[in-house]
Amino acid sequence: MTKDINNIKASDKRALKIEDYFNGILQGSRTILSKAITLIESSNSQHQQLAEELIERCLSFSGKSVRVGITGVPGVGKSTFIEALGTYLIEEKNKKVAVLAIDPSSTKTKGSILGDKTRMNKLSINENAFIRPSPSSGALGGVAKATRETIILCEAAGYDTILIETVGVGQSETEVKLMVDFFLLLMLAGAGDELQGIKRGIMEIADVIIINKADGSNVDNANLAQQEYKNALHLFPANDNGWLPQVGICSSTENKGISETWKIIENYFKLTQSNTSFYTNRKLQSKFWLENTINTSIKELFYSNEKIKAKINELEIKVMDGAISPFKAAKELLEIFKK
Amino acid sequence: MTKDINNIKASDKRALKIEDYFNGILQGSRTILSKAITLIESSNSQHQQLAEELIERCLSFSGKSVRVGITGVPGVGKSTFIEALGTYLIEEKNKKVAVLAIDPSSTKTKGSILGDKTRMNKLSINENAFIRPSPSSGALGGVAKATRETIILCEAAGYDTILIETVGVGQSETEVKLMVDFFLLLMLAGAGDELQGIKRGIMEIADVIIINKADGSNVDNANLAQQEYKNALHLFPANDNGWLPQVGICSSTENKGISETWKIIENYFKLTQSNTSFYTNRKLQSKFWLENTINTSIKELFYSNEKIKAKINELEIKVMDGAISPFKAAKELLEIFKK
Repeated sequence: MTKDINNIKASDKRALKIEDYFNGILQGSRTILSKAITLIESSNSQHQQLAEELIERCLSFSGKSVRVGITGVPGVGKSTFIEALGTYLIEEKNKKVAVLAIDPSSTKTKGSILGDKTRMNKLSINENAFIRPSPSSGALGGVAKATRETIILCEAAGYDTILIETVGVGQSETEVKLMVDFFLLLMLAGAGDELQGIKRGIMEIADVIIINKADGSNVDNANLAQQEYKNALHLFPANDNGWLPQVGICSSTENKGISETWKIIENYFKLTQSNTSFYTNRKLQSKFWLENTINTSIKELFYSNEKIKAKINELEIKVMDGAISPFKAAKELLEIFKK
Repeated sequence: MTKDINNIKASDKRALKIEDYFNGILQGSRTILSKAITLIESSNSQHQQLAEELIERCLSFSGKSVRVGITGVPGVGKSTFIEALGTYLIEEKNKKVAVLAIDPSSTKTKGSILGDKTRMNKLSINENAFIRPSPSSGALGGVAKATRETIILCEAAGYDTILIETVGVGQSETEVKLMVDFFLLLMLAGAGDELQGIKRGIMEIADVIIINKADGSNVDNANLAQQEYKNALHLFPANDNGWLPQVGICSSTENKGISETWKIIENYFKLTQSNTSFYTNRKLQSKFWLENTINTSIKELFYSNEKIKAKINELEIKVMDGAISPFKAAKELLEIFKK
C-alpha cells in the first residue's frame, strides 16, 4: 500500500502522502525527514495541515532521546565543537545524532550559522548524523514551534541525541533552555572582549561551562579560566534538581576534553533520571509550551485588531512620556478589544 | 473649597473626596497618603475608580525620585539595613524616604515582612520617613500594579528616595527590577546554606552586592566574600548602560559601610543620568508595564472563559503525557476562544 521510500525522488513532491512521510521517518530516511521539516517551515496552509497531522502521529514515537542545548558567541568555535562531539558520539558511543540550529539573525540576513555545511565536513557526511540549519523566517508560529516540532520528527526517525545550537547573543537561549534537558555554554579563556557579547543571564542557566580552544599557548589560560569559573559558580545557588553546574576545558581541534565533556553530561542524566527531575522537567516544558503558545496567540489576536492598531501608538507615547499611567492606558485598550 | 487636611480624622472616611486626597498628598500628609494607598489596595470598585483618578492626577507630580530595589533572603538583615540606610539618608543627606515592601508570602500567611514595624523602630517614627507594608492579597490587578501606583503617590507626596524591599526567594525580584532604577542584593559572608535560598538569576540582575553583618568575628569572612564576589562579577557580562556591578561590605548594626554603599548608588545615578540611560530605562519600564498589563488582562479574559475552563485541564494532562503536542492543544483552545 505504501510506496517504497527508496523510490521517491526529491523532485517528486506531489507523490508524498502522509503515509509516505510517516513510514519514511520511522524507517529513518534522512531525505523524507528533511522534506517533512520543510513542511513544518512552510507557510502554505496545506503543508501546515500535513505537518500537523504528521507530528501528532510521530508523537508517540518521540521523547526517547537526550536533548542538549549548546550556545556561545560567534568565534567561540561552536561548529568545530559540535563536529568533534557529534563524531565522538557516533563513533565511540554508537549514537545517532541530530544537529539543529537556531539563528535569530538568519531571519534578517537570510543566512544561517549552519548554512555553510562545510564547517561540519566530517559530521555532515556521516550517515548517523542529521544536520539541519535554522528554520527560515517564513515559518508560521515562530522558530521555537518549528524547532520543537523538528525535535519530535528527528526522535521518531531514531535520532537519540539532539544537539541544538544557538548563538548566545539573543533571546533564543531562554527558549532553547525550555526545550532541552541539558544546557552547555562554550566560552573562551581570557576573552575579555568576546565575553561582552554573551547576554546577561546565560551563565546562570548553564549546566556546564566548557572553556574551548584549550590548545597551544592557550592551555594555561584555559586552566586558569576553568578555576575562575569554578570559583564563580560555587557562589551561585544550586539548581532545583540537585545539579551543581560544572566547568570543563576542551580543544575541539585537538579532540581533547570531548569525552570528558560527555562524561559530565552523562553524569547529569544519571542524576536527574534517578531523582526523576528529568521526566518532571519534560512534563513542565510541555506545559510551558502550551501556555506559551496560548499567550502568543491571544497577543497576536489583540495586537492585530484594527481598532487596537489605530490607538496603541498614541497611548504608548503618552505612557512613555508619563502623561498617562500604563495601567490606565491598558484599561482603555482592553475596553476597545472587548467590543 | 477644600477641607483643611489637618481636620480630617482617621475615622471620617466618607468625608474624603478626590480633592482631599489630592491636596493631602501634595501637602505631604502621611495620613492621607496611607489612606490613598488603601484605596489602591481595595477591591471595592468605587475605591478603585477613585484611586485611578487620583493616580492620573498625581502622575505629573511623580517621577522625581530615585527608586532603589533591595533584596536578600530572610535573615540577611534587610530591615536593619534599611533602617540604617534610611536614617542616614534623612539625617545626612536631607532626603525624604519611603519604604515599600513586597512580600509574596504575605498573601498566604496574612503576615508581612514589614507588618512588625518595631523592626524599624527609629525610621518608623521619623517624620521624613514613610513605611508601608506589602499590599494585601485583596488587591485587584496584582501586587506589581499596586506597588507601581504607590510609588507614584509617594513621589507626589514629596518622597525623593523610594526603597522597595523584597525577600529574594520568589518571582517578585524580576518585577521589582522593572520598577526601580537600581537593584541592591544583600548577602552574608560564608553563608553556604543561606545562599541556597536565593533564586537563581538574582545575582545577575544586581547592580551592587552588599555583604551585610560585617561585624565582630565576621569581618574577615566578609572581606574574603567581597573579594570572591568581585572576582565572580568580573566574569559576568557588563550592563548595557555601562555600569559594572560592584561589591561592598557593611554592618547595619555598627552603622559601618552605609555611607559607602550610598556613594556607590550615587555613582550609578551620576553615570546613568549623564549617559541618559536612566531616563531611557524609565521610559522602557513604562512601556513594559503597558505591555505587561495588556498581556495579563487578555490572559485573564482567556482563562476565565467558561468554555476554556471546561476543556483546558483535560488537554493539559494530555500535553504533559505526550499524547498531544502543545501546539495542537493550544490551537484547539484558541478555536474555542474565538467563538
